[in-house]
Amino acid sequence: MAGETVITVVGNLTDDPELRYTPSGAAVAKFRVASTPRTFDKASGEWKDGEALFLSCNAWRQLAENCAETLSRGSRVVVQGRLRQRSYETREGEKRTVFELEVDEIGPSLKYATAKVQKVSRGAGGGGGRSGGGSAPDDPWATAVPAGSSGQQRGGFDEEPPF
Amino acid sequence: MAGETVITVVGNLTDDPELRYTPSGAAVAKFRVASTPRTFDKASGEWKDGEALFLSCNAWRQLAENCAETLSRGSRVVVQGRLRQRSYETREGEKRTVFELEVDEIGPSLKYATAKVQKVSRGAGGGGGRSGGGSAPDDPWATAVPAGSSGQQRGGFDEEPPF
Amino acid sequence: MAGETVITVVGNLTDDPELRYTPSGAAVAKFRVASTPRTFDKASGEWKDGEALFLSCNAWRQLAENCAETLSRGSRVVVQGRLRQRSYETREGEKRTVFELEVDEIGPSLKYATAKVQKVSRGAGGGGGRSGGGSAPDDPWATAVPAGSSGQQRGGFDEEPPF
Amino acid sequence: MAGETVITVVGNLTDDPELRYTPSGAAVAKFRVASTPRTFDKASGEWKDGEALFLSCNAWRQLAENCAETLSRGSRVVVQGRLRQRSYETREGEKRTVFELEVDEIGPSLKYATAKVQKVSRGAGGGGGRSGGGSAPDDPWATAVPAGSSGQQRGGFDEEPPF
Repeated sequence: MAGETVITVVGNLTDDPELRYTPSGAAVAKFRVASTPRTFDKASGEWKDGEALFLSCNAWRQLAENCAETLSRGSRVVVQGRLRQRSYETREGEKRTVFELEVDEIGPSLKYATAKVQKVSRGAGGGGGRSGGGSAPDDPWATAVPAGSSGQQRGGFDEEPPF
Repeated sequence: MAGETVITVVGNLTDDPELRYTPSGAAVAKFRVASTPRTFDKASGEWKDGEALFLSCNAWRQLAENCAETLSRGSRVVVQGRLRQRSYETREGEKRTVFELEVDEIGPSLKYATAKVQKVSRGAGGGGGRSGGGSAPDDPWATAVPAGSSGQQRGGFDEEPPF
Repeated sequence: MAGETVITVVGNLTDDPELRYTPSGAAVAKFRVASTPRTFDKASGEWKDGEALFLSCNAWRQLAENCAETLSRGSRVVVQGRLRQRSYETREGEKRTVFELEVDEIGPSLKYATAKVQKVSRGAGGGGGRSGGGSAPDDPWATAVPAGSSGQQRGGFDEEPPF
Repeated sequence: MAGETVITVVGNLTDDPELRYTPSGAAVAKFRVASTPRTFDKASGEWKDGEALFLSCNAWRQLAENCAETLSRGSRVVVQGRLRQRSYETREGEKRTVFELEVDEIGPSLKYATAKVQKVSRGAGGGGGRSGGGSAPDDPWATAVPAGSSGQQRGGFDEEPPF
């Protein structure tokens, strides 16, 4: 893939990551990162929080499992990925668009924490059907469209997350 | 402002920039950039377009006027800015969230074009009330909320775009 | 190429771009961009220039020709590319390392200027031997190693810039 | 500081971080990150390593101590910081320029590893003289200039790393 919009976000998880598996066994983790800028207020001489940016993130395969095991609500992370846009239809037939980050790399920030890092032996975990690199299927958390029908609509995929 | 999510996007304007002025005379330009990644399809041996990312961009003051004068529908640009999220309410009372880019720097891409660059003398144009640096007010194109009431709701601003 | 360090730099050209051609006719432009951060000095209440970052940039093919035609000393640009490191030996046999940017996209900044953009018809120019996409050969401005011998040392390339 | 060149690098530490303290007690950690891109070789159908980018990194205060405690040679990290250039003179009187990253955020990558994250209570550690935010003094590892004299030459600093 060329010409993608790669961005880096620093922020905190708004909840524990949610881990799921596709029928073929590929892990996928979803979580939201809140990034809050700070402004220096000259009048008061203090830093104030600006409006937060909330970004939904998807991690796949081994990375997904490592996220689920390592991160939890409140974790501060440095995350790099490809900014993507996904359109879907609500139950009422309205079109909506969401922005998401397809995570390529993520790590718990060492700004306010230390970490004991443990290498994962390759081949472990439910990496399953999808080998490294490739692009990910659409959001497995899409609930607006009945799950049963989505596999048919998106016939191009060889597997579909079961939700 | 510290801790903002600064990103760079390369893409094409979906329309001509729209230029407006705040009551105090500050120019603001709005436009949308479509960034289309390409995937190499091994089967066919050809590059194929991926799903485009559409990002609304706001430029302010002199930069806004320069955008309006230079860019038009289809222009390929390199744009750097701060990714922001803005929430608003529809006429029906539903909450929506949009992602926008507050433009810091932008230039017409030289990948497929040349350009004759003309420096703008400082002080020219309707830069008006807002001197360099500061953060920008909310989206002047918000149409869901009646314009007349917005000034009161957002009492914190010293000026409000007239739309 | 995956896993490259893609960065965006905003700054001014320190000189006019230098345009050269490989034996097979591929254009390559070289120039240096100076990016100067500013610090707000609380004592004086003024912005002061910080230490500048100087980065050598290489652009190739049509992009190279468009840079040479559009940009000149002092031009403010937004440039995106891949940060690379190149090691070479001086005439005295010392090893040196330089950082360079392989330019993917660049545009003249509209912050203080407007531009008249002119599309270049594809196929025009001396794009020559190298069709889009691929990575570029080593720095054609390397003067430390005699030009005559470099072709032999770098036998892997199908062509070599003549300097 | 505005207008700095903020970049994100993913790579592996070439050695254990080196931790030192300034006279006033501020911790500073130095380490080098090697980032290796991969190219897909069509002929062999395999990914091959490209030329690595080596970038010296400086982390300060609490972040420095957390790096020293968490990271070691080979650790894969995601690091964000400001790209800077530093010029110095060798013992022979030659001018040299190095590129460095002033680290703002860093985390151990979860791509091939999990981590047990432990929050550090604020106020702990030798954060000492420098409170958050500010820019860092020059490279404390500069060996070309005798350490004893450097404090005098750089009279502008209120403290100087002791090496």
